[in-house]
Amino acid sequence: MKHILIIHGPNLNLLGRREKDIYGHSSLDDINRQLASLAEELKVSVSFFQSNSEGDLVNAVQNALGTYDALVINPGAYTHTSIALRDAIAGTELPAVEVHLSNIYRREEFRKKSMLADVAVGQITGFQVDSYLLGLRAAVNYLRNRE
Amino acid sequence: MKHILIIHGPNLNLLGRREKDIYGHSSLDDINRQLASLAEELKVSVSFFQSNSEGDLVNAVQNALGTYDALVINPGAYTHTSIALRDAIAGTELPAVEVHLSNIYRREEFRKKSMLADVAVGQITGFQVDSYLLGLRAAVNYLRNRE
Amino acid sequence: MKHILIIHGPNLNLLGRREKDIYGHSSLDDINRQLASLAEELKVSVSFFQSNSEGDLVNAVQNALGTYDALVINPGAYTHTSIALRDAIAGTELPAVEVHLSNIYRREEFRKKSMLADVAVGQITGFQVDSYLLGLRAAVNYLRNRE
Amino acid sequence: MKHILIIHGPNLNLLGRREKDIYGHSSLDDINRQLASLAEELKVSVSFFQSNSEGDLVNAVQNALGTYDALVINPGAYTHTSIALRDAIAGTELPAVEVHLSNIYRREEFRKKSMLADVAVGQITGFQVDSYLLGLRAAVNYLRNRE
Amino acid sequence: MKHILIIHGPNLNLLGRREKDIYGHSSLDDINRQLASLAEELKVSVSFFQSNSEGDLVNAVQNALGTYDALVINPGAYTHTSIALRDAIAGTELPAVEVHLSNIYRREEFRKKSMLADVAVGQITGFQVDSYLLGLRAAVNYLRNRE
Amino acid sequence: MKHILIIHGPNLNLLGRREKDIYGHSSLDDINRQLASLAEELKVSVSFFQSNSEGDLVNAVQNALGTYDALVINPGAYTHTSIALRDAIAGTELPAVEVHLSNIYRREEFRKKSMLADVAVGQITGFQVDSYLLGLRAAVNYLRNRE
Amino acid sequence: MKHILIIHGPNLNLLGRREKDIYGHSSLDDINRQLASLAEELKVSVSFFQSNSEGDLVNAVQNALGTYDALVINPGAYTHTSIALRDAIAGTELPAVEVHLSNIYRREEFRKKSMLADVAVGQITGFQVDSYLLGLRAAVNYLRNRE
Amino acid sequence: MKHILIIHGPNLNLLGRREKDIYGHSSLDDINRQLASLAEELKVSVSFFQSNSEGDLVNAVQNALGTYDALVINPGAYTHTSIALRDAIAGTELPAVEVHLSNIYRREEFRKKSMLADVAVGQITGFQVDSYLLGLRAAVNYLRNRE
Amino acid sequence: MKHILIIHGPNLNLLGRREKDIYGHSSLDDINRQLASLAEELKVSVSFFQSNSEGDLVNAVQNALGTYDALVINPGAYTHTSIALRDAIAGTELPAVEVHLSNIYRREEFRKKSMLADVAVGQITGFQVDSYLLGLRAAVNYLRNRE
Amino acid sequence: MKHILIIHGPNLNLLGRREKDIYGHSSLDDINRQLASLAEELKVSVSFFQSNSEGDLVNAVQNALGTYDALVINPGAYTHTSIALRDAIAGTELPAVEVHLSNIYRREEFRKKSMLADVAVGQITGFQVDSYLLGLRAAVNYLRNRE
Amino acid sequence: MKHILIIHGPNLNLLGRREKDIYGHSSLDDINRQLASLAEELKVSVSFFQSNSEGDLVNAVQNALGTYDALVINPGAYTHTSIALRDAIAGTELPAVEVHLSNIYRREEFRKKSMLADVAVGQITGFQVDSYLLGLRAAVNYLRNRE
Amino acid sequence: MKHILIIHGPNLNLLGRREKDIYGHSSLDDINRQLASLAEELKVSVSFFQSNSEGDLVNAVQNALGTYDALVINPGAYTHTSIALRDAIAGTELPAVEVHLSNIYRREEFRKKSMLADVAVGQITGFQVDSYLLGLRAAVNYLRNRE
Repeated sequence: MKHILIIHGPNLNLLGRREKDIYGHSSLDDINRQLASLAEELKVSVSFFQSNSEGDLVNAVQNALGTYDALVINPGAYTHTSIALRDAIAGTELPAVEVHLSNIYRREEFRKKSMLADVAVGQITGFQVDSYLLGLRAAVNYLRNRE
Repeated sequence: MKHILIIHGPNLNLLGRREKDIYGHSSLDDINRQLASLAEELKVSVSFFQSNSEGDLVNAVQNALGTYDALVINPGAYTHTSIALRDAIAGTELPAVEVHLSNIYRREEFRKKSMLADVAVGQITGFQVDSYLLGLRAAVNYLRNRE
Repeated sequence: MKHILIIHGPNLNLLGRREKDIYGHSSLDDINRQLASLAEELKVSVSFFQSNSEGDLVNAVQNALGTYDALVINPGAYTHTSIALRDAIAGTELPAVEVHLSNIYRREEFRKKSMLADVAVGQITGFQVDSYLLGLRAAVNYLRNRE
Repeated sequence: MKHILIIHGPNLNLLGRREKDIYGHSSLDDINRQLASLAEELKVSVSFFQSNSEGDLVNAVQNALGTYDALVINPGAYTHTSIALRDAIAGTELPAVEVHLSNIYRREEFRKKSMLADVAVGQITGFQVDSYLLGLRAAVNYLRNRE
Repeated sequence: MKHILIIHGPNLNLLGRREKDIYGHSSLDDINRQLASLAEELKVSVSFFQSNSEGDLVNAVQNALGTYDALVINPGAYTHTSIALRDAIAGTELPAVEVHLSNIYRREEFRKKSMLADVAVGQITGFQVDSYLLGLRAAVNYLRNRE
Repeated sequence: MKHILIIHGPNLNLLGRREKDIYGHSSLDDINRQLASLAEELKVSVSFFQSNSEGDLVNAVQNALGTYDALVINPGAYTHTSIALRDAIAGTELPAVEVHLSNIYRREEFRKKSMLADVAVGQITGFQVDSYLLGLRAAVNYLRNRE
Repeated sequence: MKHILIIHGPNLNLLGRREKDIYGHSSLDDINRQLASLAEELKVSVSFFQSNSEGDLVNAVQNALGTYDALVINPGAYTHTSIALRDAIAGTELPAVEVHLSNIYRREEFRKKSMLADVAVGQITGFQVDSYLLGLRAAVNYLRNRE
Repeated sequence: MKHILIIHGPNLNLLGRREKDIYGHSSLDDINRQLASLAEELKVSVSFFQSNSEGDLVNAVQNALGTYDALVINPGAYTHTSIALRDAIAGTELPAVEVHLSNIYRREEFRKKSMLADVAVGQITGFQVDSYLLGLRAAVNYLRNRE
Repeated sequence: MKHILIIHGPNLNLLGRREKDIYGHSSLDDINRQLASLAEELKVSVSFFQSNSEGDLVNAVQNALGTYDALVINPGAYTHTSIALRDAIAGTELPAVEVHLSNIYRREEFRKKSMLADVAVGQITGFQVDSYLLGLRAAVNYLRNRE
Repeated sequence: MKHILIIHGPNLNLLGRREKDIYGHSSLDDINRQLASLAEELKVSVSFFQSNSEGDLVNAVQNALGTYDALVINPGAYTHTSIALRDAIAGTELPAVEVHLSNIYRREEFRKKSMLADVAVGQITGFQVDSYLLGLRAAVNYLRNRE
Repeated sequence: MKHILIIHGPNLNLLGRREKDIYGHSSLDDINRQLASLAEELKVSVSFFQSNSEGDLVNAVQNALGTYDALVINPGAYTHTSIALRDAIAGTELPAVEVHLSNIYRREEFRKKSMLADVAVGQITGFQVDSYLLGLRAAVNYLRNRE
Repeated sequence: MKHILIIHGPNLNLLGRREKDIYGHSSLDDINRQLASLAEELKVSVSFFQSNSEGDLVNAVQNALGTYDALVINPGAYTHTSIALRDAIAGTELPAVEVHLSNIYRREEFRKKSMLADVAVGQITGFQVDSYLLGLRAAVNYLRNRE
């Protein structure tokens, strides 16, 4: 069975409490529950990790090596600035699917550039909670096609 | 039952014959067959349209109004230059999911900017044929959540 | 009697049905009717052409040569990208008045640049339907002053 | 009866004496006479103001409040640099029509950007004296449509 | 015997009638006659295609596959904007020689960038009709060296 | 006793009458009254100057030399363009505190750059009338710390 | 009674020991003592937090929710790069006053841009320790005006 | 006998009192005296004008027409921003020699661009008072060569 | 005896396991062993610190003050973004030698700019493990020359 | 008989020995031999000059005046930086055909701009040795058409 | 007696033969004769040096050290690109007056930037031969004021 | 035994005489002596070459082929502009170590970019004479590791 790590970046722990018109009404726990349920359907296992610290997110990616087969990652604000997170993904060579709740191309200019997009397998942006669910499907399909 | 129009932009009719390391081995017919099969599973109908002409693609979007509930569109090369296509989507207010076979953020600088991304519901890029299939799911979920 | 061709670019056939806060409530037929009525008052003839295709618009400009004395053109989305349309106007040396319904300087950054403005006689922007009517007057005056 | 203030910016008092290939042969008095005559035809009153000083032009806009219904303004060289003039128009909320004798898009790069265009109702550029006359019509129509 | 398709982009059908100081006095038919005559001398066959429509030009490139061994293409205004045409050339992998009548580096800033130059074999610019004739020689030599 | 000159730039005489959602409901007289009252509390004297003219503001700064110990200045629209005002402050070496009613970093791009900020002692922006009051405190503290 | 959290970003713990010509002679403890004394005068409570870690600063902002009414924050080096800190402030919707000891507009180019300024209430820069004290006054006034 | 107007822009009335390391120790009167003495030697007449107001400087240039044969102008801070002053010089077609006391290429980035340099006969920068004296010689020689 | 702290930034703990064509085959332990052996030869002591967290690296630099005489630092991904790390080095005034395993000028555009280079003594880039060894020599020589 | 000078810029003497995948297998002598043979066929004379020094290349262009009727020049690395070479061509008014072995538009960004292209008759790039041969034909045709 | 070296950069040996509308009708010998005659009047000695080679010009500047008191230099095309020439002037600390025959601010964009202007005493541009004569006066005055 | 050529670019012959605060007190002969002595210790031979001419430096690199095993090069001012020198290094494929006396990242903006850095093995900048000595070590180690 494939093991997939879901990584949530900074401020995503505020979900459901903050700017709901941008990020929707689900809390992070709601999202994780829906992901767990889809994982069961797809016959894979999922774990979850959230942190507001760039260094801890880098550690999480590094530690995934050997334990997980792929990452689904919403890097939050670090999407646009973190070369360290990019290097961790490129360095571990773990397949990563980048997801965003909001459509980052409808927002501030500085949110339109991702430092991770070209080391990720692909990017899914704008579908609210469904971005995560589609991201999990994408990761699973990617792993199965690669076999 | 929801009706969804799948729109393929310029040169996508070459699929399976051209640059396979970038775009994969499936032909456009293969992709359409997989989409039709998923549509059946999701209990929606799908139609297909391909053209190399920007004007014809604009016409197709305009004509979708009244007939289709949503678009899944791979605008190909027009992604990066077509304000007309953007205006057609914004003007008709049809929900559109933008998809790309290749990861456009790994390619030439001029492919990293989409003129459509901020009028689309969201964007899915980099998962080869799976980009289309996830895009169809995204469109269907979007329509069902909106009801 | 002077003959003037009114050219409407992509998506203008949606007028009255689309984004009314930007483009107003008149349909393209309404606009054409008002132009025909003003033409009668100014003692000139007018014809109308609309297309969503850049190539067809280029053809229309080329074909105007020998039949029409001037153009009033709303190039729509092609305003900002079409060198071909610009070259057609420069190549035929037909006097062209560029008009826009909305104030293009209040909108997205990419709408602030016109590829045609410096080969047109002049530009009128922001007065809704009146942009066309003022444009027709401008074209007629231009032809009469030139005599 | 509507009252409209025509504002002429710096160096427009040189008209008819300076760079005639760019600005035409009419003097400022000629232009004002033509405007007065058109005003009579349109059944509105017009007044005129010219200054080379940015501060005086700002004062003129502020003082127009309560006396005039709209402005037709050729801001001359201040078009491209004056945030103060822009703020005066935005602050008084007087409808303003921006006009230019020459086609500013055929000239030096620094003349292609207007600081006022997006707080004006619209812009008319390139028709020599006719820019003012069309501008007056535009202002009158704007006021009548708004009633 | 090698078969070569000569493709003329938008507005080139106006040749001999338009801006002669830039593009010279020959009509498109004159150019085609000279090319046919050189082809005979070089013992290759040539065909000709002209269109003002980007989509038709893309179609022409795609359809050349299997029939023609190489392209000589003057993409006209689409040189500077068409990613679709670029993709068609890259996708079909037909050797293409890009030619321009005028020296595009002596003209407006926006004409100095070609979207096709780096997928073409090479570029010849500035020699009027001779650009085409040298381009045909270049294509023939390229095919013969490759054998 | 320290003497401080409060300088108000262009359009600030419209305060309380214009764009109240940006600039608040106080008139310029209200602000001056609050400043005078705080001055009394801080045991300094204040005078006030407002002009819409860049030249007059430059004159005011120059004339302050010898009479005033410091400036509190809201340069309004000239903040972003006036090198002359900057030079007057740098040339007289009067300590100047730059204040803004609105948060200039939340507004148009061109309002985010101050030509004066690096010759001022410091900048206070975004606290409505309180920006002026804090600015007066800052100027007084600056003078007292310097003694 | 209002509760206000004072947040000090990276390297501010070096104050009084480092680059004194830029940052002044006070230590962080000196500053905190002055703030506590002013708080007493203003009849509010203050707490203090310093960290060199972006993630910890984000946590501190998030944890302030429910306990504090406003923030006075000197984000130090993270001012110019941290979207995560910006998102934390925007997400919690806590009113934040941004303060800087030095005049950031007199320093390196990269220090002139704040990622937080447009989500803060306002910014105070350049008055050394007084920036903090004015910032505390600004926060208190803001809370009292809002009541 | 030739008549030459010497125009001094904003803040030059502070000379000898302000930033002496940049602008030298001479007052404006000293400079004018040296210019008058050189004028006598060169057998031309000179007059002097100084203002801090852009509008007044534009007026001065316009009024010079008919009275003066050439201008020597130090536009001070308006060098870098005033299109109105540029237009006045271009419009009157008076030969103008642009002079600067300091070497403007050794100073802030924004001082390196002159809006007037390409409508002036030439520019002399960096020689302190001697810039004016050389400028007067240049103007006189220019007038004599042109005869 | 001089004490030197060797600081390794994010992802350098992956060395020997990740992208070996870029970073070489040595593990971080190998590098540290070679540095310890060279330190012995040069008669200095060395300590080592690695972290993936920007805040911890800032802490490490601050804590070095008083214990170490110089730093040899490979800031990894933080090279290109960390103003906090830059400020820590500038603030502590510890001499720092910046080293990189790979030639950062051969890699992505965003790796070509170092935020630390102008506060470091110097930079050594491209010599694989030898970059560290040369960096240690450089630091030791710098300390000895300074004595 | 026409005399044509072939000028080879820096490092072209390395041809056949250096980077053969970019520049091909022919040595400079091979190229010169092929050019001499084509010259005979075209009934013109050719001479050759190569230098690594910008100054010597400028001298060669200047000295060609009076002796040669046209230049075929491959300016090598100086293509992208030499204004002196450009000025020599423009100053002597010798018709020059610019040629490049490799397709300069497929290479590094800095090779895409030619300082000479707009003073040359035209440019031929990308056909290896054939670029020179086509260039010689272009020069000869140019001279014959001009007669 | 002061000794001054006049340095002429590339292509200035073509003067009087090339582009006379830009550079005037005098030959380099004419200019040198006028300079020699003015030198006699000013009681200084002058020598002349011209080269098309950047390296030779650098040598000339270095060799001037100890023999000459100042330089008058027209760096021609190297004005815009030569850091080596700039470093030679800065390194020798010889006072240098930069002169240009044409008004470099009226020409191509790339001629508007001088790499030498901020290490020169000052710059004189646009007065044809008079630029050199004024430059010699400027150099002599500079030396005499410095005594 | 390995043979290494040390190349010194323009103005380095002024060392010890020019701007000593930037480049230090050693003359070029001092540096060469220290290099010769280190070479002996490292058991390699070294030769030296200095020129102010770009062409001569290109020649020196070309001529090194076959005689030398590696280059240590301080390209001086040509670092930032010379594509010819870059091409010579890339063309000969000689391993080159780029060195700079001063820290080029602390100086003018135009000195921060090296045209050679990405064709060199690596770069060492900022350690005064030690940059050369470390560079020689780097070259020797590189050659020995490659064996």
